[in-house]
Amino acid sequence: MLRKRKGLGIAAVLLACFCGVCAGAQPVTVERWGIFEASFSGPSEGNPFVDVELTATFTQGEQKVTVTGFYDGDGVYRIRFCPPSLGEWTYQTQSNRPELAGKTGTLKAVEPSKGNHGPVRVAHTFHFAYADGTPYRQIGTTCYAWIHQPMELQEQTLKTLSEAPFNKIRFCVFPKWYAYNKTEPLLYPFEGTPPSSWDFTRFNPAFFRHLEKRIGQLCEMGIEADLILFHPYDKGHWGFDRMPKEADDRYLKYVVSRLAAYRNIWWSMANEYDFMKEKTPEDWDRFFQIVQSSDPYSHLRSIHNGSVLYDHKKPWVTHVSLQKGSAVEDYRRAVLYRDVYVKPIVFDEVKYEGNLPQRWGNLSAEEMVLRFWEGTIAGTYVGHGETYLEPNDLIWWAKGGVLRGQSPSRIAFLRKILEEGPAEGLDPIDKGQDFPFAGQRGKYYLGYFGRKILTEWPFELYRGGLSEGMKFRVEVIDTWNMTITPVEGIFEVSKKDGYFFADKNGRSVPMPSKPYMALRIVRVED
Amino acid sequence: MLRKRKGLGIAAVLLACFCGVCAGAQPVTVERWGIFEASFSGPSEGNPFVDVELTATFTQGEQKVTVTGFYDGDGVYRIRFCPPSLGEWTYQTQSNRPELAGKTGTLKAVEPSKGNHGPVRVAHTFHFAYADGTPYRQIGTTCYAWIHQPMELQEQTLKTLSEAPFNKIRFCVFPKWYAYNKTEPLLYPFEGTPPSSWDFTRFNPAFFRHLEKRIGQLCEMGIEADLILFHPYDKGHWGFDRMPKEADDRYLKYVVSRLAAYRNIWWSMANEYDFMKEKTPEDWDRFFQIVQSSDPYSHLRSIHNGSVLYDHKKPWVTHVSLQKGSAVEDYRRAVLYRDVYVKPIVFDEVKYEGNLPQRWGNLSAEEMVLRFWEGTIAGTYVGHGETYLEPNDLIWWAKGGVLRGQSPSRIAFLRKILEEGPAEGLDPIDKGQDFPFAGQRGKYYLGYFGRKILTEWPFELYRGGLSEGMKFRVEVIDTWNMTITPVEGIFEVSKKDGYFFADKNGRSVPMPSKPYMALRIVRVED
Repeated sequence: MLRKRKGLGIAAVLLACFCGVCAGAQPVTVERWGIFEASFSGPSEGNPFVDVELTATFTQGEQKVTVTGFYDGDGVYRIRFCPPSLGEWTYQTQSNRPELAGKTGTLKAVEPSKGNHGPVRVAHTFHFAYADGTPYRQIGTTCYAWIHQPMELQEQTLKTLSEAPFNKIRFCVFPKWYAYNKTEPLLYPFEGTPPSSWDFTRFNPAFFRHLEKRIGQLCEMGIEADLILFHPYDKGHWGFDRMPKEADDRYLKYVVSRLAAYRNIWWSMANEYDFMKEKTPEDWDRFFQIVQSSDPYSHLRSIHNGSVLYDHKKPWVTHVSLQKGSAVEDYRRAVLYRDVYVKPIVFDEVKYEGNLPQRWGNLSAEEMVLRFWEGTIAGTYVGHGETYLEPNDLIWWAKGGVLRGQSPSRIAFLRKILEEGPAEGLDPIDKGQDFPFAGQRGKYYLGYFGRKILTEWPFELYRGGLSEGMKFRVEVIDTWNMTITPVEGIFEVSKKDGYFFADKNGRSVPMPSKPYMALRIVRVED
Repeated sequence: MLRKRKGLGIAAVLLACFCGVCAGAQPVTVERWGIFEASFSGPSEGNPFVDVELTATFTQGEQKVTVTGFYDGDGVYRIRFCPPSLGEWTYQTQSNRPELAGKTGTLKAVEPSKGNHGPVRVAHTFHFAYADGTPYRQIGTTCYAWIHQPMELQEQTLKTLSEAPFNKIRFCVFPKWYAYNKTEPLLYPFEGTPPSSWDFTRFNPAFFRHLEKRIGQLCEMGIEADLILFHPYDKGHWGFDRMPKEADDRYLKYVVSRLAAYRNIWWSMANEYDFMKEKTPEDWDRFFQIVQSSDPYSHLRSIHNGSVLYDHKKPWVTHVSLQKGSAVEDYRRAVLYRDVYVKPIVFDEVKYEGNLPQRWGNLSAEEMVLRFWEGTIAGTYVGHGETYLEPNDLIWWAKGGVLRGQSPSRIAFLRKILEEGPAEGLDPIDKGQDFPFAGQRGKYYLGYFGRKILTEWPFELYRGGLSEGMKFRVEVIDTWNMTITPVEGIFEVSKKDGYFFADKNGRSVPMPSKPYMALRIVRVED
């Protein structure tokens, strides 16, 4: 994937998450939010991973971005830069080795290509948007160890993802050693002898190039890479869960120096962090701080729990990543976390659609889809997972491959509805009450009734944002059968009591006496 | 109430929350966790409230407790001390005025009288206990402005409380100006001219003596005084909600210097703190820190929200005081806060039993009782409130008087059940699942089914704490009709599947097909 410009002492490489065009003339051009890479020859003696320091400062007018370079083996050093704004940028390197210091260059950041909206940021307190302002509605999935499977299986995972509804995938840097997951990976992150004799001071560039390739491929597909930096599914088999402090910290800095320029990267400090008994609460705080201070682009940062919640109020946590399946069984549970954390809430693990004997792994597809909808009308986000048993233990949850469940198509249906919704995101309309609607008051309402079977829904909306005579069109949505049926006529609201407006003629919306029904109510301008 | 020993240059006054016995001989004796008070003559010129500093250090062996004294008007200064341990204590005063410095004395702390268990502390992470280890099961109520009502009404409130189930009451230092609450109080906390011309540098000792009298009377009845230090129900009428920073801080220190020796005091920084738009988040942090550093006994500290939750993870918050009525409609909502905060959770305002037009003030008694039970099986605590309209606006919620509702007798019934429960408190048995039981695994289970109507309950308990052959007795509890009916025979458990144990003979518990039923299941030793 790395297309190098030959014939330059400094190899300037252009990567727009691998979508860019390599310019023939000076300055090199790169898409805004793409990747500019420069490589340099430098020392290979000693241990370059620890001995050599390399940074580069990129400058555009008053704006300065300092990035850390990394050693990529064979005497090659690289710096990567993700231009945050259009126009010319110059750079100059700094190093403790004279042959790497004082290198300069220029690049020109050009308009991003279609599909490149920049990194995802927090927007409107509880939601996300790309850097160019395009709303990002998180619809994630999890394949913990997909990049450690045989190459064919990885390619199959990518193909599945290209047809699936997910715009984010959670996966681990380190391989996984767990039930249904006891295979050695193709590559290891450190030099050494498998399974457990490692030189933690020497990274394996081939491992990280492979990781980058996968992140770049996800980027091309418009999928955010929610990268899990540590996890407990090792139990000392390889020992990546119990490295010394110095090795942890060096690893984090190396990963960030390689990957921060990828616009689709998100940092998850860990999966089930509290199950890593070798780490202390202070370690997790420190990891966050290392990633925060090393990443010049401030990509999203989170941490995912087992039993013990991290304190997501801490300032370095950008959004809340929760394992708490029970919360999204009922929007009135899920919504509570919004008030607690006042950040985007992502229920990244809500149990799995599947048929495992473990009760975390045998949700019906209906239940998985219900959790997405309940989370949605709570003003939060939900992640998918799948654990159907397969003779070769090819379970999506850990290994990827193919999806066997019935929820993804319904999740795709939901995603389309979300993408048609208000740019500001969906917020609870009448929080803390039995009013299962989220949206934007006075403009847009998405309601969901779960397993409740209604024959009609009295047209009544909470007063906030409403005034006499506003008009609305209504659609009845079957979230399981994926149909959207417009309701005839227009509903015009009139004050009903101190809290509610109703249709002025007292009309109700006829409902089809089935579970899993939703309503979309959109204001019609006169 | 202050019984002074006459004929002493230093008036040593003994208060065991007004239950103690005044000793005739040296040293003065005082109950452990009672109140020792010494008073001194000092300067009355200038402004003693701001000019004079007075502290005293109480010493027993290695143990030292430094308390701050206060000016009580008319040239009288007092120090109060709540002995945390039995035996002899000596003290010595410090002051910036020579006539108050270097005063010494001795007291002997004797065994507490019946009903004196010391201050309430956090116990077992999510629960409370008195200092002597006696479990404290919080059953609170709220009468915001009862101490500001006509004296007869205050006496009536005390009489009502003496017969009510509540072991905690939330009320405000400052008077209240709000719907149904627009009367001037009998006393004001500062010198000045009502309603809004105050000298915030001069406290009104009569006001605080009255407040102390009420706190002492509550103490005699075994009721904790959850004192609300600030509140927004003023809107500038008196201006106690918008005092300058210096006045806020001085007020807090004065209150703590007077009241910290009362063993039944709890500090609530505010009610609906976020509705006080004149204060910043930093103010609230500072208030907590002032109270924490001024109170030598570390009484419980909390803050109560309107719409915006305070960050209860902050280290100075001892327990979580929440207004979040919707959470206790369903134990599976309430329980979520335990994992978030890992502190005792008290839902101090869950809407009110009553008939106000506002939807926060018209719960049925059944709904109020349900909220207590749902909170209980979530391993949390609930507070009562009542808002029945009355021609003279004598609403319990703000003014006290008499209780009109049907929930208090049922809450008394619950309290008795809690007091018969395990000392460690009730913790969720199978958190995050549909298993509506709290207790102590393998020993004690309290289940509650809310509005669900069951004809039988299959005897099945989550595996935690169980082993083959354990035996249990079962009682069916009607939480509304307040009956406890033993179920015939003994249930013996046997492993049913990977998660549950069931009765070895497959027996179920017959249920009476009514709502609001509970089960108490207690292990029987062989």
